[in-house]
Parts: sequence; C-alpha cells; structure tokens
Amino acid sequence: MDKKKGIYIGRFSPFHNGHLESIKNILTQVDEVIIVVGSAQLCYQIQNPFTAGERITMIKLALEEEKIDKSRYMIVPVPDVDAHHKWVSQIIAYVPRFDVVYSNGSLVKYLFKQRGISVNEIPFFKRESLSATNIRNKILKRADWRTLVPENVYKFIEEIDGVNRIRELNKTDEE
Amino acid sequence: MDKKKGIYIGRFSPFHNGHLESIKNILTQVDEVIIVVGSAQLCYQIQNPFTAGERITMIKLALEEEKIDKSRYMIVPVPDVDAHHKWVSQIIAYVPRFDVVYSNGSLVKYLFKQRGISVNEIPFFKRESLSATNIRNKILKRADWRTLVPENVYKFIEEIDGVNRIRELNKTDEE
Amino acid sequence: MDKKKGIYIGRFSPFHNGHLESIKNILTQVDEVIIVVGSAQLCYQIQNPFTAGERITMIKLALEEEKIDKSRYMIVPVPDVDAHHKWVSQIIAYVPRFDVVYSNGSLVKYLFKQRGISVNEIPFFKRESLSATNIRNKILKRADWRTLVPENVYKFIEEIDGVNRIRELNKTDEE
Amino acid sequence: MDKKKGIYIGRFSPFHNGHLESIKNILTQVDEVIIVVGSAQLCYQIQNPFTAGERITMIKLALEEEKIDKSRYMIVPVPDVDAHHKWVSQIIAYVPRFDVVYSNGSLVKYLFKQRGISVNEIPFFKRESLSATNIRNKILKRADWRTLVPENVYKFIEEIDGVNRIRELNKTDEE
Amino acid sequence: MDKKKGIYIGRFSPFHNGHLESIKNILTQVDEVIIVVGSAQLCYQIQNPFTAGERITMIKLALEEEKIDKSRYMIVPVPDVDAHHKWVSQIIAYVPRFDVVYSNGSLVKYLFKQRGISVNEIPFFKRESLSATNIRNKILKRADWRTLVPENVYKFIEEIDGVNRIRELNKTDEE
Amino acid sequence: MDKKKGIYIGRFSPFHNGHLESIKNILTQVDEVIIVVGSAQLCYQIQNPFTAGERITMIKLALEEEKIDKSRYMIVPVPDVDAHHKWVSQIIAYVPRFDVVYSNGSLVKYLFKQRGISVNEIPFFKRESLSATNIRNKILKRADWRTLVPENVYKFIEEIDGVNRIRELNKTDEE
Repeated sequence: MDKKKGIYIGRFSPFHNGHLESIKNILTQVDEVIIVVGSAQLCYQIQNPFTAGERITMIKLALEEEKIDKSRYMIVPVPDVDAHHKWVSQIIAYVPRFDVVYSNGSLVKYLFKQRGISVNEIPFFKRESLSATNIRNKILKRADWRTLVPENVYKFIEEIDGVNRIRELNKTDEE
Repeated sequence: MDKKKGIYIGRFSPFHNGHLESIKNILTQVDEVIIVVGSAQLCYQIQNPFTAGERITMIKLALEEEKIDKSRYMIVPVPDVDAHHKWVSQIIAYVPRFDVVYSNGSLVKYLFKQRGISVNEIPFFKRESLSATNIRNKILKRADWRTLVPENVYKFIEEIDGVNRIRELNKTDEE
Repeated sequence: MDKKKGIYIGRFSPFHNGHLESIKNILTQVDEVIIVVGSAQLCYQIQNPFTAGERITMIKLALEEEKIDKSRYMIVPVPDVDAHHKWVSQIIAYVPRFDVVYSNGSLVKYLFKQRGISVNEIPFFKRESLSATNIRNKILKRADWRTLVPENVYKFIEEIDGVNRIRELNKTDEE
Repeated sequence: MDKKKGIYIGRFSPFHNGHLESIKNILTQVDEVIIVVGSAQLCYQIQNPFTAGERITMIKLALEEEKIDKSRYMIVPVPDVDAHHKWVSQIIAYVPRFDVVYSNGSLVKYLFKQRGISVNEIPFFKRESLSATNIRNKILKRADWRTLVPENVYKFIEEIDGVNRIRELNKTDEE
Repeated sequence: MDKKKGIYIGRFSPFHNGHLESIKNILTQVDEVIIVVGSAQLCYQIQNPFTAGERITMIKLALEEEKIDKSRYMIVPVPDVDAHHKWVSQIIAYVPRFDVVYSNGSLVKYLFKQRGISVNEIPFFKRESLSATNIRNKILKRADWRTLVPENVYKFIEEIDGVNRIRELNKTDEE
Repeated sequence: MDKKKGIYIGRFSPFHNGHLESIKNILTQVDEVIIVVGSAQLCYQIQNPFTAGERITMIKLALEEEKIDKSRYMIVPVPDVDAHHKWVSQIIAYVPRFDVVYSNGSLVKYLFKQRGISVNEIPFFKRESLSATNIRNKILKRADWRTLVPENVYKFIEEIDGVNRIRELNKTDEE
C-alpha cells in the first residue's frame, strides 16, 4: 500500500520549538512529511535573516536531536514565484508527490483548496512566544530566546554568528 | 571533529547508474554528500523531461534501493540564475555548508575554483552508455534502457508514464 | 478616415460603477476604447484579489449589461514591468495602436506625456464611494456594496465566491 | 444554461488563413472562443516579428472581414512563464473561464491533459502552405504570400511596413 | 606598483554635497574610486526619481565642477538582484577590480565583510541636512535645497524639470 | 552651445582594434561618445567570456593607451531586457542624454529608427579579421591574436588568464 505523505510549508526564520511540535504532530497523521523551506531565495533581510542552506541545516539538526526517523522526512527548499497564481504549480513541481498539505496560513490554505488539494490545520503550540517574529525580536533586545528553539538550532545560530547578523540587518532596516 | 562534506551537482534527467557510482565513490571520500538537483526549474522539455520533485524522488528511491545510510546524504534542488556570475553564490545560499565540490563539468569547475573552492573530478563509469542523453535517446527509440538505471528509477518512470512523456515532448521539439 | 482610439488603464479590482461611467465618458470622445487591465499578473492579494481573467470577465459582463456596442471596445491585460522606464514601451507593445490615453493617475500621466503621447483626464464620478479600495473594505465589513458595481459584476463575484476570497486574503494580510 | 467556451492558443506570427479556418471550425463546436495570443512578450525577432498589439489587431481585422459575430470571440495576450510547470496556471489566470482547449501542439496538449483539462485537436487546413514559418519565408524571398492571409491582414502588414521589418530582422539573424 | 582602487556605492537620488565630500575623502585614501550607481533600474519613483543615466550625469557634472582629475574616478551603474546572496557577486561582475569598499550601510558592510572584502566607513558630513531624503522633502515643500547640492547638479535638475517630476511622483504616492 | 553626443553600442567580447577605429571615427563626428557595454549581465559563456567589469577595464585601458581625451568618452554597462520592445527604453534610462546612435547592427538600427532616434553606420575596419568571434576562435586554436587587439587589452587578458578561461568555456560548450 502506498505511504501517505504530507507537506509542511514554512519559512523557518528561524526554526523553533513550535515548528518541531507541528512536525511531530503531522507525523502522527502521515507516514512521511516533506518540509518545504518556502521563500528559499530570501536571506540577509531582517525578516528572513538566514539562507535556505542555513534553514535546512537548522531543521536537520533539530530533527536529529529529536532522533526522528530519517526515513520519515525530507527537507526541500522552494523559491517564491512572482505571482500567486503560479505558486501551487511551483510547489507541485519542486517536491515529490504528496497527499495533503499542513498549514495555518490563510493564503496557502485558500490556494491549495482552490486547486482541489486537501489542507489540514495544525494545532498551534504556545503561539505567542513560539513565533519566528517574536524570537527575532528577543534576539534584538538581548532577551532570552535559547529556550524557544531546539538546543541544536541555538548552537548553530551561535556558530554562524546569527545574533550579530540579525542586529546588523536591523540597523539596515532603520537606515 | 567536524564532518567533511561534499556537494555533487547534476541535472539527473534521469538519474542513472553512472550517477549512483559517482555517489558511492564520493562517499568513500567524504562523510556526507549533498546531492544538488541543478536547473531545478526546468521540466517538460525534451532535455529536462522531469520536474525537480520527480528527480528528487528518483534519487531517493535509488539510494534506498542501495541501502545507503540516510545520515550520509541530502538532496537539494537549486534553480538556475540568469547570469553565470551569480551561480556560485546561488549554490552557497541554497545548500548547507560544504568543503568540496564534485563535478566533471568544465564551467562548474571553473566557477568554483575561481571562487577559491576545492573541486574534485569523479572517475566516469561506462560514460558512453551511462549518460542521460543516451538514455533519453534509447527511450525514444524504444531500445533497452532498463539496465542503465537503478530498478527503482525504472519503476518510478514507468509509474509516472515518463516514457510517453519523453515521446510527446520529442514531438514538440520537431514541430 | 482613421478612427480615433483611446486607451483606458486601470486595475479593476473590482470593476465598479465609476469605471463604467469613465468608459461611457471616453466613448463620447473617441471611436474606440481599449481597456487595459493593468498589473495583470497580480491576483490573490488583498489589494488585487482577482485574476486578470476574472477582471476581464467583469468588464465584459458590465459592458454587455449596458449594451455598449461591441465594436467600440476591446479588453487587453498587460503585466507590470520591473522598472518604470520600460512601462510605456510595454503598453505600446501589448495593445493595438492608439491616439490618446485616459487616466487620472499622476505617474501614468507623467510617463506618457514625457514620451510625447496625449493624456486626458476623466471626470471623477462619486469618487469617495466609487473606489475599488472602498468596495473591498465594504466587503470585508459586510457592508452594502451591491449598488456600487454593475449588477452583472455583483453576480459574477458571488458566483466565484469572491467575498469569501477577499476575507481569506485579508486574514493573510494580518498574519 | 451556461455557454460552452473554448480557448485557441497560437502565436499568430502572422495570423493566416489556416488560423481563420481553425477559428471557424472551433465556433461550430463551442459558443465562444477565447483566442490566446501566446508568447505575448516576444516581438522584433525573425520568428516573432510582430508585437502582441499588432497580432491582436490582425486577428480583429480578419474576424471583422469575415463578419464573425463579435459576441462569440475574445482576444487575450498571455506572456510566457520561465518554466513549463507554471504555464497552465498562467493561462488559467489570464483568461476567462473555459471548458476546452483547442490545439495541435504536443506540449500544450500534454500539459493541459495532465492538469485534467479537455484538449481537442483541430483539423489542419492546407498545412504545408499555411504555416507562419512558410509565410515569413515567402516574404523574405519576395514570393507571393498575399493569398495566404486574410486581405485585412495583408493590408495591415503593408501599413506597418512589416515586410521591411521581417527583412531587417533576418539580417540581424545572419550577423 | 598597482594602483589602489576603492568602490563607493550609493543611489545618488540626487547626488549632493555629502556624496561629494565622501568622494574627496576617499580620494585621499585610494588612487582611483569607482562610483557605483546602485539600484540602477529604479526611476520615476518618489524615492528614486531619477534614471541611472540622469544620476550618472549629475555625478559627472559635479566632479567636473570640482575639477577632480578624470583619471581618478569612474562611474558604473549596477542594477539590483532579486536576492541579497547574489549581490556581492553582481557588484564584482559589473565593476573593474577593486581593493576596498567605502560604505556606511550596514547590509553593504555585512555582505562584503562576509565575503572577505575590506570595507571602510566614511565620516558623515552634515548628516541631518545632507541626505537625499531630506533634499527630496525640501523640494516637495518648496524649501531651499540649492545650497545642499553642487551647483551643476542644481542646474541639471532644473534643466530636466526634476522638481516638477518629484512633485508629480509624490502625488502618485498619495493616490 | 550644447555638445553633440553619440552612443556606441557593443558587447566587446573582447574589445579589439576594430572597435578602437570605430570610436576614433565617431569622435570625428561628435563631441562626446558614450560607449555602451551591452548584454552586461552575460559572462563566463563561450560567446561572452568576460564580465562587464572586465570589458569596461579593456576599453578604459585601450583608450588610455591611445591617449584619447578622457573628457570625450564615458563607458556605461547596460544589461539586456527580456523582450525587444523594452530595449530602447532601457538604453535611454541607463545612459546620459545622447543625440545619435552609432551601430551596424540591423536590429539596433531598426529599433532606434522606429523610436525616431538618429542612427549612423560606422565604416567597418578589416572586418574579416577584426571580429570578436574571429579573435575568440584564434585564441582557441592558439593562433596569433595579439596584433588584433590594443596592446593593453592583450596584457589585461593575459593578466586575468583569459585565454585559459576561453578554452575551459569551450569545453563546456562541447559537453
């Protein structure tokens, strides 16, 4: 029998504990999850400070830390298209065949449903603290953010001097 | 100690036994290989009949068939850029950190070396028969091509009716 | 003697009674009007919820409802260019030959005049209520908007479930 | 009851008697035909010498010459996308809703069928002489081409000095 | 011995006395300066009202007015890329070889340093008044701005009716 | 009285003695020449092996070698556009105001004339040997090419190891 496969779409800027909980939740519903690193071309912006390669690394390190079975997930970067009507086709072309989409984004849900593809919501997990925006803000304010991301993600961001990067990009934003 | 990582760049249209031998060879030299599916945006063309998602699937199925340790490889699609001078930066942004590039392509080698990045050649394996062009031609001529690709790749191409697709795309080319 | 032709440029998101009045007004001045659906690539955004195809349909239905002579207008979608200096050339290439431009937009007027092409203003018709922004806002607030658009446009938006679309896209905007 | 609508896709470089026959044929099968001027951005090339606006004009003039009911057709230019997997979505977004596609192009047929959309072939009409390539070649060789296109198209190409344009573009090709 | 060369990157919308002071300062440190007109594709926007050609002309006129030795500078327009990771490669490809970058922009500094290229800051000169934003605002308010730019730049902006252009573009912004 | 200015458009891959003769010839007809480095984005291709920055450097070195007055020329790189109808607007936006275009290219001449801009031809100088294609071929065949380019251009190409680059790019072409 064919395996059931889902895709989970995010920007992961950075990958945090809420994303991890979502993936664990999705893995209770499907055999395999394809984690789509959206807006793959964006980087070095205050809202998207990390490259696709760095975001892939964060996800890989976090899932290894959790000892999640490597045969149950894939990570695929997908760049944006220049107009929303091409976006579902872009996803379909870049990722292996899937049965269902997991997302809480209204536009994502709207576009896939319109194309006749199943979309499931994912329960939010500590939504106020566990958002990428909140974490980037905490980094900027030098507030504690270590507990909000998997330990491996914390170490990786330290290793690539990501905190300093976010602060420099924020200055740019203010210029 | 940090793991040594290499990237192996191809278009994999389709993935064949020569690609598989190269990956095995690379894995004798590095701890991990990142397999870059280049020209990811191309598909439904006679020279690039398969989508990035389909090419990722072929590679995944072939490496599972060979029982290669999943912690030793990743597959990352990367779309082309509109000018060669941006290409190395594109690769660096889309894939996790790497130490060395494996390629036999002259332009690939030239561009990475110019950027100061190590490039290793890979011994060719039965080059005359094991080329994607040759395999697409055999498919067009209804000649035997099953032995030239991993069995899982053969089955996948059958499953998605890839033979018919290549024949239809070839008509387009002649129009 | 050659017919006098004008172009009328808008985004028509959605097409409303103010647009209709403008077209009637323009048709008192020229033999034929080419209605340019600008930013044709945009869709599924809160400010541009409808595809070019849907906007073309709205205009067609509205002009049929008014029984305007079909030999006196054409509808042509034109996508944006990535820099303003190419925009007049884009319009000239996409539409049949024309003599005069009808627009109230300052940039549109500036760019065409600079190129030596005549631009005429159009008297506004109930400008406060008859703006696409106002209509989208009324839809969001479930206020009455039916009287602001031609009856055929109202029915078409209902038929494609456009009200729900605008509400979903608005959520995205708030995310 | 809803009208049946078809789309007919071509590049029309230039519009000739074969295209005209196809449109008449299609109009025996559907209530309305949407004529899609494909590769709308291309122009001033030896294979695509005319702008989208000029191609729209040719089609309009030809159908007026034939006195075809204006309520039974629309003409819509659509620019290319940068990858084939986005092309069907591009067409769907740019044109009003349609039921069936008319085309003899293998790729067009393949892509629409794969998306689950009906595609009908159109009987060719004097295929050897009635091809845009043949007509452009005749123009280059100063051979007779007037009989191959509707009289209005011939006059329009003369009016915009199209013969000279094709000859100049051909020189460029040889440079 | 090889000459020391620096690049100085700006948008110069418009070129003002602060830019001029920076160039003089840089010329005390290097033999030649390459002045990069960034975002070269932008124009006819309220924040970038002038074309690259107009911005080049302003710089040329200002440096001629100051009688700066023509063998000590070049002016090179460079268009933006669609993602920050490609930007340093874009600059390197568009300009002659250089040794050091002069910039006060945080992102510019970050991206070049990350690539291992030296970046020097430039002392600001009357920063509050000498900013392009301030000068465009003064033009809008019909306040005195003549003393903030080189006399040749003032005359050139008058000659191309730039004041009126900025006012027209500002209306667009408010529409 | 205003100076008369001309633009001279080429790709300069590489800059050779024929280009130099053309510039000298143009300078007998105008006060200033703006040398447009076309297709500025292309590089590392067998037909366009050099970056825009390298091509600018070649022209600068060659004109310095000839001791041509620096106040009589400028060098401006201009990237291609994606459709010919935008190209004249692209040139106009990227370069300072000019009165006349110098070119022998049929398409260039056609597009500028159509826009109402004067175009002058330039007498060819030893056309068979002095073409960039011929020079790249001589480099590939290790035939003598030193005498076909200004001495400074020869030295610069040697300095950047351009001969090896052209040979490597040629292999790519054959792969």
